[in-house]
Parts: sequence; C-alpha cells; structure tokens
Amino acid sequence: MVGAGQLARMTYQASIPLGVRLRVLADTPADSAAQVCPDVRVGDYHNLDDLLAFAAGCDVVTFDHEHVPGEHLAALEAAGVALAPGPAALQYTQDKLAMRKELTRLGVPCPRFAAVASLAEVTRFADEGPGWPVVLKAVSGGYDGRGVWVCDDAFAAGEVLAHGVALLAEEYVPFRAELAALVARSPHRQGAAYPVVETVQRDGVCHEVLAPAPGLSATVAEEAQRLALSVADDLGVTGLLAVELFDCGGSLLVNELAMRPHNSGHWTIEGALTSQFEQHLRAVLDLPLGAPQPAAGQTVMVNVFGAQDPDLYDKYIHVMAADPGVKVHIYGKAVRPGRKIGHVTVTGSGDGEENVLALRDRALRAASYLATGKEHAE
Amino acid sequence: MVGAGQLARMTYQASIPLGVRLRVLADTPADSAAQVCPDVRVGDYHNLDDLLAFAAGCDVVTFDHEHVPGEHLAALEAAGVALAPGPAALQYTQDKLAMRKELTRLGVPCPRFAAVASLAEVTRFADEGPGWPVVLKAVSGGYDGRGVWVCDDAFAAGEVLAHGVALLAEEYVPFRAELAALVARSPHRQGAAYPVVETVQRDGVCHEVLAPAPGLSATVAEEAQRLALSVADDLGVTGLLAVELFDCGGSLLVNELAMRPHNSGHWTIEGALTSQFEQHLRAVLDLPLGAPQPAAGQTVMVNVFGAQDPDLYDKYIHVMAADPGVKVHIYGKAVRPGRKIGHVTVTGSGDGEENVLALRDRALRAASYLATGKEHAE
Repeated sequence: MVGAGQLARMTYQASIPLGVRLRVLADTPADSAAQVCPDVRVGDYHNLDDLLAFAAGCDVVTFDHEHVPGEHLAALEAAGVALAPGPAALQYTQDKLAMRKELTRLGVPCPRFAAVASLAEVTRFADEGPGWPVVLKAVSGGYDGRGVWVCDDAFAAGEVLAHGVALLAEEYVPFRAELAALVARSPHRQGAAYPVVETVQRDGVCHEVLAPAPGLSATVAEEAQRLALSVADDLGVTGLLAVELFDCGGSLLVNELAMRPHNSGHWTIEGALTSQFEQHLRAVLDLPLGAPQPAAGQTVMVNVFGAQDPDLYDKYIHVMAADPGVKVHIYGKAVRPGRKIGHVTVTGSGDGEENVLALRDRALRAASYLATGKEHAE
Repeated sequence: MVGAGQLARMTYQASIPLGVRLRVLADTPADSAAQVCPDVRVGDYHNLDDLLAFAAGCDVVTFDHEHVPGEHLAALEAAGVALAPGPAALQYTQDKLAMRKELTRLGVPCPRFAAVASLAEVTRFADEGPGWPVVLKAVSGGYDGRGVWVCDDAFAAGEVLAHGVALLAEEYVPFRAELAALVARSPHRQGAAYPVVETVQRDGVCHEVLAPAPGLSATVAEEAQRLALSVADDLGVTGLLAVELFDCGGSLLVNELAMRPHNSGHWTIEGALTSQFEQHLRAVLDLPLGAPQPAAGQTVMVNVFGAQDPDLYDKYIHVMAADPGVKVHIYGKAVRPGRKIGHVTVTGSGDGEENVLALRDRALRAASYLATGKEHAE
C-alpha cells in the first residue's frame, strides 16, 4: 500500500487475520502505519524509482491516498506492476473535471459544473443558472475540505482565482443531508454495497458518520447503492469506491469519489460483518468479497481532532472509564490542532435507549473529551 | 508479551487501535506473532538473560503461555520487572497440585484429587471413592490435552506412571457440558465477566465454542461468573483468567485455569464489545476495562486444525466464496497435521434461521473445508 497514514494502519490491522502480508510505502518511519507494520519502505511517492523499488516483489499495489502522479501510475503499469485500482480508474479521483465529465457522460446526476480559468468565466457560470454562492474546486490535489472554496460573490471568487491553481466551478447544492455509499468491486466483477450512511461535515471535513443514515427511505438508499455499484463498474474500479452524495430531499447528486478505504467507512470495523479495510484487501487481491451487512442496528463514528494538549493518555483513560462500550481508535500521529488523530465508534440496537441520538451523544462526548479534555466540543 | 504464538498475534492486532506498543519474545522470527509485529526479540524464555534483555524498557511484561520457569519469574520480579500476572498468581497455572490445593482451601468446588507417586497410590485413590476411570495429570507442563490421561484401569495408570513425571490423580467427572468463564481483573481490582460459553472438546482439545452456552440457566451462568471473578481476586490475577468448568447438571466443578487470552475467548473478537485481547491489554496496563457484553445474540467459533495439505490458499478462497459472513482467522503457522492453524467465527441473532445449530453448521463447514478441503470433518 502506497501511503502509511491511518488508512494504511487500519488496513494493516485487517491484513493480520487474513494472513495477507502488507508492505507500506511511508514518508517517514514515524508515519501512522509505519509504526505498526514490520514491512515498511521509506520513500517518496513522487519519485518513480522509489515506487518501482517499493513495488518489487508485491503481487499487487494499492493506495491509501490518490496523490501518486498519473504519469508514475502509467509508468508502473507499463513496468508490469499490478495496480488496484488502476490508472484508468484513479484518474477520476485525481482530476475532478475529468470525473465530472465522465459521470455526466454516464448519466450520473452531478451538480452543474464548468471549467473556469477567469473571473469572467466564474461570473458567467453563476449568471447562467446556479447563481451565487459558487463552489470553486481545485481540479486536483484537494482533500478534506482543502481545495474547496464556497464563494458568496465575485470578490471571493477573485481571491481564489489568485491562487493560480486549475479550477472548476460547481453549483452550490442546498442539501438535506450528505450521504456516502461505499461499495467494493473485485477484478472478477463481484460487487458488494454497504448500508448508506449519513456524514456530518464541518468546513468540508467529516466529523460524524451515522450508519445507516437515519430516516433515509429505502428507495433512496437503494438508489444510492445502485448508483455507486454502477459507477464502480463503469469506471473499472478495483477495491473500494466511496461515493459522497448530496441528498436533496429524495434526489441524489454525486459530490466526490474516493477509491480506497474512506473515513465514511470507519464504522464498519465494529458495525459491519466485514470491515471496509478487510473488504478492500479482499477486492484488491481478487478474493471473494465479505458480507457488508451491518453487525449492529445502529453505529455512530465520530472523528477525534487534535487540540492544544499533545498528551492523550489521561484523556484516554477517562473516556474508557466513562463509557466502557465506546471503541477508541488511536492513529499514533503527533497531536496538532485540527489534525485527525483517531476516531471513536459506538454500536447499539438503534431502538429505545440505544437510539441514534443516544449513541451519537455517547460518541460525541468521547471524541470531544479525547480531543479537548472537555465533555462537549467547543 | 513473552511468547509469539497466535495469542500474541491476536493481542498485537488488538494493540494497534489502542495505540499500545507491544514487543514479543519469539522462539524464531517465523513465529505467528513475530511475522506481524515490528518489535520482535528472538530469545529463549528458559533463559533468564534473554528474559531480562527482553523486558528492558517495557512498562509491563505479560505472557502468551504459562511455561516461563517459576524461578525466572521470581528473578524478573526481584529485578524490578513488572509482571502481569505476577508469579504469585502464575504458580497456580504451572503447578496443578498447588492449584487444586489452593482452590480447595478457598472453597471452590473441584473434582476430588490426590498427589500420586505410585500405582498403589492411584489404586488407593480410586478405591477410596472416585473409582475408575481415574484422570492422571502432569503436575506441570501440560496443555491442550497433553499431560492428561484418562485411565480406565490400573494397567493404563501404570503405563502413565512409567513416564516418570510428577502426577496428580483426579476424579473422572461425567459432565453434561464443558463451560468456560472468562473474566478480567486489573491492578485497580476492576473486574469484568464475559458471558459463559460452552466448549466442545475432543481428546482434551477445544474444537468449538458456543457463546453464550446454549441452554445454560441464568443461575448457573451467574454462578460460573461469580466463581471466576472471585478466583481472579483470591489468586491476585492481573489480566485475563479463563476458568474451565464441568457442568454436572447444575453443579459446577473447576477443571483448569489459564491466566492469559484463551481459546475459549476467541469468539469475543467479533462477538463481544471488547475482545479478550483488548481486555487483557487494558487489564495488564491498568486501564479501565472494556464492556464484555455480547455484540451478537449468538457466536460460534470453531478451530481449524492442520491436515495433510500444507497449502491453505485454494481452500481459503472457497470458504470465503461459500459463506461471505464467516470470519476467517489465519495464524500464519506452518500446516502440520493436528496443529491449530486458525479459527473461524460466525455471528447471528441466535433466533430463527440464525439459531445456534445453523451457526454451528456454518462454522463447522468452513473450518472443515479450510482444514481438509472437504465439507465435513473426517
């Protein structure tokens, strides 16, 4: 796996019972996954020689991020390295304009969009229908809210254009909720769809995941799963595909795609019969896929973000003592304000005292305390 | 953790989300846990220098087996190494005669027993009440049925005595079922009790675990939990204590003790809110204990034993394809006939189509296929 962040760390954990040997390509030996995995190569994923040396002896190479340059992916493939997902699929996570064009060609509902290179083009896009605010997105390189700007007016858009990065403009969608549909697809073209979840984002960053999405109609949930499975097949994805969606009160629009384990799927470690990390490995290795069915009626996952205090230990003990049923996942990353350093998961029946509000309250308390030492987020 | 078998491997897996760093002392780099853990020391647990070098820099030392010589445990403790469990508790897993005497002193119900050094003493023990068969056990060193002999008559007992090992004689108990009560105890004296399970043994080796034990009355289950918690407290156990029990139709007799993660607790990985491996780490590190409540109505675990074919791969794919809901755990051990090389777990509601018989059938099929390539055990 290229990349040694928390996604690789949790994938490594899932590889152990499968008896699969996983090697990670880390930026430094201190990376989250490099701390826990015995087979670590330190190198630069921008460097083709490092990538080739890393891949030597691997049956298949997969990714914990989408930042390997496209020309290196092509060169690896040309050198006979098996990539999963392959460059033909990965291009749509690296180039948001190409993704929008391809999804539109496939008839997949998306927000209105246009490539923009000047303020005049942004203004024309707004005037031709969507109006303001306009969402400007970096065509490549963005993640976790980085590279996405919601512009209320032409002045704000002008400031973004001044960054000098390639942009596309998108309609600002007033959604009812944000959803994520996570599916897996194997080279044998076996597919598996997880229950559709609701994600609660702040400033473009996922904070909470409610699985399944509360109050979502079965019709819309099935439509989201169908759409994600067909996108995975149409784009030729191997491994996981997370489709982030806007629920606009019954109709769905695709927001983003990711072709790897995804934050919206961390709940599956405890909440599904097969975790997304195990599923990704099974798909990438062309093993039969595992059952994606829920293991609990309701699961709530809340991310833990670093605050000022670099020491987690006392807070960790408090959380364990306060709620013995909460599952704490620590990524081993240095604590920096705003950085994702872990997550917590709570499962329950979803009924009565374990309803989604009660589970959410427990998970939010635990995550808030881990981050800040306080019971509620500031 | 001293020892790098599958118990250490699964403990290592549990250490990752906790952010706990685990070092293992392995016999060879090919040991089950040594394959997956980056911090491996190769050494001999019979050698005090190896143990001292291993323990240097560890906050606490725990064990995946009970075979470290008692004098070395005492020497480690004298050298200031924190051992969990400590030598005072561990002696009762290393000396079955001392265990029987101490449990009897504590009023814990056990089979009748006697130290025996000659055939005359065995015969006298049988004649004084229990009759034949008599169970002869090696006072130390036995596990998984090794060191236990059921002797139908004096002739058979004579053959065992000829081995020349220290023995105790025990009453042969005609049990209704074998149960296991797994509890954890921390230095803070916090305790946690898992649901009581039924274990199905063949030739003294655990083959299946049914969690919770089907048809067990709440009264007997609570008595088993109470008994295990009180034994853990009375013996000063830190970490897990597995108490193997004979259910004699309502009354309970203690068969064996283990002070570490135990085969009867593998079901907790998927079947309980806190796995036994996480719980052992939490107890040993004096962290607050996790919730031992079940995560599913019924869980069935079946061990996978090596057969003739050393290659698991084809069979592994078949099992995954045949039953996407079965969880396969591979230990990475070389396949040898009769050796525990993995286990499978199936969870369900316990009702209707997911009743215990149906779950057991699924788990037995998967385990049998993995071992032999056939749907049913030979």
